[in-house]
Amino acid sequence: MKQARHPSVDEMTLVAAMAALSDPIRIGLVRVLSRGGERGWGELRAPVAKSTLSHHLKVLRDAGITRTRQEGIRCYVELRRADLDLRFPGLLDAVLAAADGEDVGDQVGLAREGDR
Amino acid sequence: MKQARHPSVDEMTLVAAMAALSDPIRIGLVRVLSRGGERGWGELRAPVAKSTLSHHLKVLRDAGITRTRQEGIRCYVELRRADLDLRFPGLLDAVLAAADGEDVGDQVGLAREGDR
Repeated sequence: MKQARHPSVDEMTLVAAMAALSDPIRIGLVRVLSRGGERGWGELRAPVAKSTLSHHLKVLRDAGITRTRQEGIRCYVELRRADLDLRFPGLLDAVLAAADGEDVGDQVGLAREGDR
Repeated sequence: MKQARHPSVDEMTLVAAMAALSDPIRIGLVRVLSRGGERGWGELRAPVAKSTLSHHLKVLRDAGITRTRQEGIRCYVELRRADLDLRFPGLLDAVLAAADGEDVGDQVGLAREGDR
């Protein structure tokens, strides 16, 4: 993966953000990342093929929801919480609260230490 | 149109609401309806075919965003603001604020008195 293109705060659009956040797996990824910090892609567990997970991570990145960083052969991802709160005040918190209430995306998680 | 089925507040899902609100025409309809009250379908102006507008109104209704009522041969639609605020606190306000900022869906409007 080449260093990925990320939209600036000004380039983010509401329609792309809403579409990115309208899928249970992507909402689950956002919930996991909202617990803080950067995560290696290899740590993420979701009941989908690796190529599908990669696609979901790209959709989130292209919408400005997450930031992806490559270091050697490893990729890392984090939530762009401050940028999202700046561009779409209140949106992320509302989505996370609703997702918690419904347990949307609870099939997404992190690998346990021993699994990596 | 038969009297349409509307999801109860408990039946609404975050994924369906986010998907319904990820289209500029549908966001425009929600913005128009957010200005208050019930509107006749014939009052709504959008740069799409009538069948497409009808589809968008169905997507909004099925997600619980709007309520549709038939009276004789006329259909009316209103925003389910209280239900949305109950089910997804803060979501509608965040979407409307972001949509205002970006002018998303500003191609949707209401017919002027003389046009009806």
